[in-house]
Amino acid sequence: MAKIKVGVAGYGTIGQRLADGVARQGDMELVGVADFAPTLAIRALYEKGMPYDLYLVEGADKAGFDKLGIPVKGDFNSLIDQVDIMLDSSPAGVGAKNKEIYEKKGVKAIFQGGEKNSVADVFFHGYANYEKGVGKDYLKLTSCNTTGLIRAVDCLDRAYGVEKVAITIIRRVADPGDYHRGLTNALQIDKAPSHQAVDLMTIMPHINATGILVHTPVTHGHIITVVATGKQKITKEMALEAFEKHPRIRVVTIDEGFQGNASFFKYGRDLGHARGDNYEIGLWEDSIVESGNDIMFAINIPQESVTIPETMDGIRAACNMQAEGKDATEKTNEYLGIGLFKNMFK
Amino acid sequence: MAKIKVGVAGYGTIGQRLADGVARQGDMELVGVADFAPTLAIRALYEKGMPYDLYLVEGADKAGFDKLGIPVKGDFNSLIDQVDIMLDSSPAGVGAKNKEIYEKKGVKAIFQGGEKNSVADVFFHGYANYEKGVGKDYLKLTSCNTTGLIRAVDCLDRAYGVEKVAITIIRRVADPGDYHRGLTNALQIDKAPSHQAVDLMTIMPHINATGILVHTPVTHGHIITVVATGKQKITKEMALEAFEKHPRIRVVTIDEGFQGNASFFKYGRDLGHARGDNYEIGLWEDSIVESGNDIMFAINIPQESVTIPETMDGIRAACNMQAEGKDATEKTNEYLGIGLFKNMFK
Amino acid sequence: MAKIKVGVAGYGTIGQRLADGVARQGDMELVGVADFAPTLAIRALYEKGMPYDLYLVEGADKAGFDKLGIPVKGDFNSLIDQVDIMLDSSPAGVGAKNKEIYEKKGVKAIFQGGEKNSVADVFFHGYANYEKGVGKDYLKLTSCNTTGLIRAVDCLDRAYGVEKVAITIIRRVADPGDYHRGLTNALQIDKAPSHQAVDLMTIMPHINATGILVHTPVTHGHIITVVATGKQKITKEMALEAFEKHPRIRVVTIDEGFQGNASFFKYGRDLGHARGDNYEIGLWEDSIVESGNDIMFAINIPQESVTIPETMDGIRAACNMQAEGKDATEKTNEYLGIGLFKNMFK
Amino acid sequence: MAKIKVGVAGYGTIGQRLADGVARQGDMELVGVADFAPTLAIRALYEKGMPYDLYLVEGADKAGFDKLGIPVKGDFNSLIDQVDIMLDSSPAGVGAKNKEIYEKKGVKAIFQGGEKNSVADVFFHGYANYEKGVGKDYLKLTSCNTTGLIRAVDCLDRAYGVEKVAITIIRRVADPGDYHRGLTNALQIDKAPSHQAVDLMTIMPHINATGILVHTPVTHGHIITVVATGKQKITKEMALEAFEKHPRIRVVTIDEGFQGNASFFKYGRDLGHARGDNYEIGLWEDSIVESGNDIMFAINIPQESVTIPETMDGIRAACNMQAEGKDATEKTNEYLGIGLFKNMFK
Repeated sequence: MAKIKVGVAGYGTIGQRLADGVARQGDMELVGVADFAPTLAIRALYEKGMPYDLYLVEGADKAGFDKLGIPVKGDFNSLIDQVDIMLDSSPAGVGAKNKEIYEKKGVKAIFQGGEKNSVADVFFHGYANYEKGVGKDYLKLTSCNTTGLIRAVDCLDRAYGVEKVAITIIRRVADPGDYHRGLTNALQIDKAPSHQAVDLMTIMPHINATGILVHTPVTHGHIITVVATGKQKITKEMALEAFEKHPRIRVVTIDEGFQGNASFFKYGRDLGHARGDNYEIGLWEDSIVESGNDIMFAINIPQESVTIPETMDGIRAACNMQAEGKDATEKTNEYLGIGLFKNMFK
Repeated sequence: MAKIKVGVAGYGTIGQRLADGVARQGDMELVGVADFAPTLAIRALYEKGMPYDLYLVEGADKAGFDKLGIPVKGDFNSLIDQVDIMLDSSPAGVGAKNKEIYEKKGVKAIFQGGEKNSVADVFFHGYANYEKGVGKDYLKLTSCNTTGLIRAVDCLDRAYGVEKVAITIIRRVADPGDYHRGLTNALQIDKAPSHQAVDLMTIMPHINATGILVHTPVTHGHIITVVATGKQKITKEMALEAFEKHPRIRVVTIDEGFQGNASFFKYGRDLGHARGDNYEIGLWEDSIVESGNDIMFAINIPQESVTIPETMDGIRAACNMQAEGKDATEKTNEYLGIGLFKNMFK
Repeated sequence: MAKIKVGVAGYGTIGQRLADGVARQGDMELVGVADFAPTLAIRALYEKGMPYDLYLVEGADKAGFDKLGIPVKGDFNSLIDQVDIMLDSSPAGVGAKNKEIYEKKGVKAIFQGGEKNSVADVFFHGYANYEKGVGKDYLKLTSCNTTGLIRAVDCLDRAYGVEKVAITIIRRVADPGDYHRGLTNALQIDKAPSHQAVDLMTIMPHINATGILVHTPVTHGHIITVVATGKQKITKEMALEAFEKHPRIRVVTIDEGFQGNASFFKYGRDLGHARGDNYEIGLWEDSIVESGNDIMFAINIPQESVTIPETMDGIRAACNMQAEGKDATEKTNEYLGIGLFKNMFK
Repeated sequence: MAKIKVGVAGYGTIGQRLADGVARQGDMELVGVADFAPTLAIRALYEKGMPYDLYLVEGADKAGFDKLGIPVKGDFNSLIDQVDIMLDSSPAGVGAKNKEIYEKKGVKAIFQGGEKNSVADVFFHGYANYEKGVGKDYLKLTSCNTTGLIRAVDCLDRAYGVEKVAITIIRRVADPGDYHRGLTNALQIDKAPSHQAVDLMTIMPHINATGILVHTPVTHGHIITVVATGKQKITKEMALEAFEKHPRIRVVTIDEGFQGNASFFKYGRDLGHARGDNYEIGLWEDSIVESGNDIMFAINIPQESVTIPETMDGIRAACNMQAEGKDATEKTNEYLGIGLFKNMFK
């Protein structure tokens, strides 16, 4: 079977990682990436010897690239002409405009969380609703927090049934290297319910969800606490058993050295992962507590990279590569090296 | 009736505010404060003209004070000899040692949250269990987070009955001006359940409580989210009605400008409050959401000053000043100016 | 002599403090403050019982104020009609537009650092060039960093002569309570030379100045290091002698407890200052080092309040209240309580 | 020629990077690393498949490693017996104790900046005093700030002669992932002169140096401003010419996207560097300003990795691998890939 050909629009924080992710899939081919300006990310691409071909979107400053000697393979249209599917990680709102081009050219696309749900046929998560995305033309991925949250909630739901969740999102406010947004010595609260709770209900309509989000001045990962009400009483042991089996959840303890979001960031770097990224969410064993019939726990979301595996799953669904979510996520996990060292310290 | 005579041991972040609080109570007299070294707080006391007499605890560097010209009224024993009750805000652990002196001298005392519960006859909160403290010799105040949390939970409990709470504490990690502790670009999680949930159950044994605490690198106030299960269904309107009546809870909205913990800090300064402090906890109206039968909301805890009113209540209980919590908290509130401008923007 | 009548345009971080400052001057009368929307600062003014009359600038949402019950005295024009001089602390750029109104009405004005120099007849500093402002209609104050920097450099210059300075500004990036700007886990550098060095040369044209500015994610005060080349060799002792005599410079040491910018913030709160503010810059005795013929030292700039005294000086100059800077700054200092406790710990 | 055999004591932030650095040197062999406890760094080593053999120092919890299944090759003595030279990155103070073992076994060693100078025969920097280290048994590397600072100052000194420098160190206070130290919303000043200025004079005794250090709550790189007095007038063009030729200095501009220390951190990650590290210091072209006869500029120090190249140089010196610093640094640079893309965007 010929490899599925993939293009990436927008070579920013997410786009770079999508390109890396596709390049690691044995059954996909990364045709190229498209961007607008010679950002640090593009300069790094050039300095690395252009492992990915670069295409320019409309309105890009071609002269700027030429002046720096950065080779450009073609324009946005020429990239789209070569691919089966586009991963659109353009700035929020641009994806909706790009969709018109994709439609005209008959190319499928997956949009990131910044776009409105209406841009896509299906609001997608690789574990929670893979089957809904099969064969569809336009998918929208859940945002980073929602992606990680759904992994954990879906995991409990499949094992024991979940009726209701109440979440508190302790959100990192910027990515490392961001200078266009930030918060200094302040926590900031959003109006409730948080969109992540609403999004979870869109993907998993049988669950009642609400939540509060508080922004915090850090860059290395969100932490979410979840209070989940099971259809049956879920004990700590039951929850732990389910979580430990999930390839994209890494169960850790504080005593091992995982003291917070920054420990995961450090660990990804020490592991030698590209960009120091982690694909798995973290889940603290020593955060799991029972509250009457409810179960409460905390997870860590590596915001820059957590949506990459589910986006690979999305390609598999949209392009009919696998009919079942189980087969698709296994393929993705295999190529990304997810779950290889599962529970090695238990 | 003669004024109750009060001394303060430890003129740090809490001790300074306890002294200020006592000085504002019309039916109490602040005899003096005791400390160890010429800290910035002591230097400021001197620069203000010694509004409070200063006593030195054992082992203090008397020569150091003399060299700076800071007048010392006497030693720790001489302070204790003049008072009916001591407020002990010494560093954690020192209070337990001081208790031996208080017992020998037959003086009552109130300890702060850093001491072990066993130091006191009653673990005390002005609203939740005032009656238990009446006439007792040794009280221990709840810590800052627990004090604020109990205000809100007790408020709902008295109005509608509460069975269970699950809390997420987004904790400020240091006070403004602290250089001996801090966190930089990191969230840090504690083993669950958090001590605040456990403490709540000690004070309110009819409620089942658990929770997770995450430290964040900010200085201006903790934020706690609470998921509360009522004995009956508690709607947003019902919750709001109860909260708005509570003198020590200030209900605000994001649209008014209260975007987070730093807004409350700024508001206290703009109000001209001493040290810019607030005695009330904040509660965001737009954080209140219903989750099935549960109610969820977020509160803001001004960690430096929140325990001052409940400590004043504690003096009233221990010294038999008022027999009922209602009367005692009203007196405290009157003298501290709490609730004067309640709901003025509604 | 009749009191000079003063109005304040813009009741933000600076405007609030200007109003407080004028209210403390025995020979001035604060007629009122003007603003646009019911911000937290305005709500606090109302909650305090309207110590200052409120006027609304053009385009303000009068209905919004009415709905909250906040009394409005009149419109912007009616304020200007009653005053001798306006202190304009409107958002940057608005002051230039307001100037047209001031000119039409024949009212003097002092603009803050955010406006362009061209808005004013004189770029003003109370110590460095008071005489240039005497009798002038429009002054512009130096910005917070420049105001504090010039205090220190002018102090050395008058005592020993200064030829050249090279400064490094370690800039706090937001004020406490700010949510509209911030930086998270990042230092940010500006193109050199910093405007503060350029501004210093405008005020003190006989000195050669340059500098580099780096933004840091903190809120409580800038720190500036200064490398100054004297016309003669300036020793540490000589520098210290000059600094200690300056009423608006507080010489401190790390051993006293002044470990950084946050210590000054804490000290202002402990002193019971309104809003916890300090008018003096801090200067660390133990930062002063000789470098060959140069002298190097570090100062702390309380960004919210440092320009208030020099603005009061500016009113004195523009309104011909005192002919000499020495007399004017003494009056300002007396009314603001500056220098009262000078060197009390030496 | 046989490869020089190298061991690393202490597998922490520096030790991990020293091991990686040695492993990349074609003429060296990394025999193994020694540590004490199964930290996150050790767990990552295991999860990566033990690319480096692990040895345990005295007192290590062997049972703890066994329980986790982490293979241990031998004890500290057995590591030392196999090597020509040890790189000691133990916690400060431990290196001095280890030296007794190294001496007994006749093994050379290089200590990191945390140890006292007296532990070594030579206080070493690969560019500034390579020749002094040739054939010596015990070297101590300059600390991260001093290493980067000396690169820049030595570069100017060799080109034009430098008489004097005054530095301001804007220091990051913790590394990413650190939970044992931190600062929250505070700048902290040290007593001047900073040790880095003193250290510079130890290495380059012909230069007069002083400086002030201010800690800032960030994790991604120090920024230092340098005011340098040349033996001749050094213009911006002259400085730039010298800096651009230095392989371990990367000249950048703000307009390219290098807005501060976090930009370098991001760029290292985007480049695909192991752990996202950079070996080069950054130098902002648009920070270079002339101040009379002096030249002022700002550099960025990647604190986790900057000393690695100079430590490799140190091995070359101590083990007589190259007689000249020029040859040694070229070898180090070649193996570490330093300077490959020098000035590619100019």
